[in-house]
Order: sequence, then structure tokens, then C-alpha cells
Amino acid sequence: MTLETVSENKAFGGTQGVYKHASAETGTEMSFAVYVPPHDKGARLPVLWFLSGLTCTHANVMEKGEYRAACAEHGVILVAPDTSPRGDDVPDAKDEYDFGKGAGFYVDATQQPWAKHYRMRSYTERELPGLVAANFPVDMDRQGITGHSMGGHGALTIGLRNSERFRSVSAFAPICAPSQVPWGEKALGRYLGDDRAAWREYDAVALIEDGARVPKLLVDQGTADQFLDEQLKPELLRAACQDAEIDAEVRMQEGYDHSYFFISTFMAEHVAWHAERLASDA
Amino acid sequence: MTLETVSENKAFGGTQGVYKHASAETGTEMSFAVYVPPHDKGARLPVLWFLSGLTCTHANVMEKGEYRAACAEHGVILVAPDTSPRGDDVPDAKDEYDFGKGAGFYVDATQQPWAKHYRMRSYTERELPGLVAANFPVDMDRQGITGHSMGGHGALTIGLRNSERFRSVSAFAPICAPSQVPWGEKALGRYLGDDRAAWREYDAVALIEDGARVPKLLVDQGTADQFLDEQLKPELLRAACQDAEIDAEVRMQEGYDHSYFFISTFMAEHVAWHAERLASDA
Repeated sequence: MTLETVSENKAFGGTQGVYKHASAETGTEMSFAVYVPPHDKGARLPVLWFLSGLTCTHANVMEKGEYRAACAEHGVILVAPDTSPRGDDVPDAKDEYDFGKGAGFYVDATQQPWAKHYRMRSYTERELPGLVAANFPVDMDRQGITGHSMGGHGALTIGLRNSERFRSVSAFAPICAPSQVPWGEKALGRYLGDDRAAWREYDAVALIEDGARVPKLLVDQGTADQFLDEQLKPELLRAACQDAEIDAEVRMQEGYDHSYFFISTFMAEHVAWHAERLASDA
Repeated sequence: MTLETVSENKAFGGTQGVYKHASAETGTEMSFAVYVPPHDKGARLPVLWFLSGLTCTHANVMEKGEYRAACAEHGVILVAPDTSPRGDDVPDAKDEYDFGKGAGFYVDATQQPWAKHYRMRSYTERELPGLVAANFPVDMDRQGITGHSMGGHGALTIGLRNSERFRSVSAFAPICAPSQVPWGEKALGRYLGDDRAAWREYDAVALIEDGARVPKLLVDQGTADQFLDEQLKPELLRAACQDAEIDAEVRMQEGYDHSYFFISTFMAEHVAWHAERLASDA
């Protein structure tokens, strides 16, 4: 698999890169961002995945996420994938920001016309990790995952389904129970069809109810988030974790909204939290 | 003068705002960004001005500058103005990124058709400070100024012309001697006319040659900056400062380019440097 460098810029002593490649899963060209902090020659570094929210590409967190200082301090590589397949051949839902391009929801679609290209679960879980492992100085035994909103949903569900792979899982304002909110009902219904049983592996609360476990979760959620009540439902995640005896720290952050002003405020804490769990002797 | 709030978002415990107002100087509506860090009720905080570069608005540094953590830590307000008048009535140089809208060069134009609206010197030096003093918890006796590229030129020239007002002056990759480089010759020639004597108050090196002084300057400049040799000329600033016995720290930063990846890397150091000079007992 060939990786093409779109751009590389020195930042905080390391390299912020953007790369693209032909994806076998999505059948499209895909772009992603990788920050590699300064490190000793030959070193293998832990890797933190950041999954982005609705309407985003790899670029939003790269420009506004303010993770590089913390990644440089802790020696963590951060990878930010795109949120959907792209290109003129990819079916889209025109004028809908919450479905189609920019809204892949980290699922493998089973319904037409989405099934061919919308394979963001396999892309994010398998194809891109293979590419990252082959091309960057990562220690794939030390992976953490986080994300924002739809990407928080992605981080929680991918982390819960692959607990052997991710030592640390956190999220910013995640969609905790997509089966129970408008964003998720729309997206899962159209990508996966009407049988709600098929939705459960893409719903963090349902996954926990069905037995998925991680040792610990960190979630930050702003109290002034305009999507909190209707779409995000952290109380359902908290309740599911309590029932399952998962140590979930769900922090309600007074006055913060859904934007990158919120994410960037708590980014350094998340990077440090992951770094602690990804330390080689942890 | 009425200030309209465009947006306010909580960030790092403070408020990142965007505001607009009708400007008497430019005859247009102008937008600017202000970050107010967390502070005690009734406190008056030092203020750092950040002037942006070609093609930028207030938004570039707000989104990519990574100043809020440091401003919150040090209790510094940061104000980011726009770089030119805007609007359909404002004459522009179509398809030229380095002149007209987004390229006001912090001058008061004397030539037609620019003279009416392109009054960014008076706007930045006088009108906006008055507005900021009236509407935010600033201590106008404690002001610092910085900026990037064209905005670094703005910070150096405004700081040199108003050394009684600015306790601290720094810059990122500034255009040090606009009279001697293509960007500056084009802009100053068209805004100010052919008489190069009129350019000198808008040229940091010329201002120093003509007697302007500040106690200390901090400049960061990337060695991989694509504009370094042709447009920026830090060596001329360094030489002028040596002749004038100005304590100028011009740091060549290995491998960094002209982008916000460079600016954000050194932003916290600049904020801390200004904060030290703006401390109430300094």
C-alpha cells in the first residue's frame, strides 16, 4: 500500500504530516493526519487515535485540537483519520450535515447505496492501523483511542469492541447511545437498515449491556453543549457503566459547549491520561 | 461606539469572543477576536495585541495560534484584529493575495483608491484600543504587541512608534524591512505613493535607523521558512538593532516554516515573555 505525503510541517520539535492513500476498504482515496513527536532514533512510540465528529476531516483537530504540545511532552503519536469516504463517486445526502460524506459514523454500511464505500469501521479498525504500523515509528502494543461527538461514539465503540488492543479509551462529548437519539437513529437506520439488533455493536451503551468491557473510561462533556440533551446522553453511559462496574469518569465541565474551544481546553489532560496508561512499563 | 458580540465560547476557563463594530477609521464594519482569561472580579489584566499576516482575518490565530493555555496561565488578554477593511464597497486587488483585502499592512493609505478605507494604522493604533479599553477588563498601562509576517511588521513598527505605550514587542517571522523586499515595495508603493521617505515610518529597520528605540525585542524565525530570503530579512533587523544598541533576540528556529505550526510552537514562550514584562510590579 503506497502512502503519499500531502504535507509535513515541523511543530513542537516533531512533524505534523498529512498523507493520502488508495483505500481498499472504501474504494476511494483517503487522507489522514499523523503527528510524530521528537523521539530517539529507533524508538517506537505509543499511538493515540483521534476520531472526529460530524462535518470534520482530519484537518479540524489538526488545526484546532491543540494536542501537539502534550504529544511532544509525553512522546505520543496522534493519528486523525477522516470521517467518511470522499469523492465524486461516493453517494452523499445533499444538504444533510449529519449523514453521508463527513458523517460515516464508523460503521460498515450494509444498505444500498452506502454499502460499497461507507466502510469506515473496517477502514479505521483494520486498514489504517496496518498502514500506520508499516509507515510510522509506532508501538502497536500501546494504543489508545479518543474522539469527539460522532468520533467519541467511534472511540467508545471501537475501544469496547477491541479491548485487547486499546489500553486506554476516552471521549469528548460523545454520542453515547446512538440507537436512542436522532443523529444515531437516522444514520444507523440508513447505513444498517431497520433491524435494530444490527445497531448494537455500534452503540456504546448497548455494547456494555451486551457484555463489552474496558477497565476505565474518561469522558469530558460541557454543560453548555447545544447537543447535550437531545443527542449525547452521557447519563445513559454513566448508568450502563455503573451496572457493568466499569470505572467511568464522566466529567461535566461547567459552561463549555460542543466546539474545539472545549476540546482544546481538555486535550492536554486526555493526552496525559492516555500517556500514563500507554507507558511501556504500565 | 457599539460593540456587537458575534460569538463567545468558554475556553481554558475564560472566554474567547469575536466582536464587530462600525469603524469610523475604515468606514466599514470590522471584526476582531478577544480572549479574556479567568480572573478575579474587578481585576484589570495586561493585554497582548496579535497582528496577523497576509490573507488572514482575526480567525486564523484564534483557531490555530494555541495562545489560550498560556494566556490563562499568565492572566493575559489577547486581542486579534483583522488585517484590512472588508466589504463590497472596499476597493480590492483581485487575485492578488499580497495587496488589498487581507493585506492592509497596518498603514494609513494616502493614495487613491485606497485612502478612504485602508486606514489600518489609525484603526489598530487608536480606534480599536479605545474600544477595547471601554469594553474589556484591560489595564492599558500594560500592553504588549506581537504578530506574524505582515503582522510582525505591524507589531515592530507600531511598537517602535509607540514605545511609551508598549512595554514589550515581539514577532514571528516578521517582514523586517518592507522598503527593501517585494511584498513591501508593492504594498507601500501603492498605498503610500512613490516617495520612499513616506515609507520609513512603516519599516522597522528604517524606524530604528531614524532613531526609534525599544528596550528589547524577541523575534522567532524558522530556517525553513519559504519567504525567509526574499521577503523577511531578519539579518537587516539584527544589524539595525546592533547599531542602535537595542537588545534584540532574533532566534533562528531550525526546520520551522512560515505556518501556524511554527507560530503555535513558540506562542507559549512569547506569551510568557510578554507576561513577565507586563507584570504589575515590573
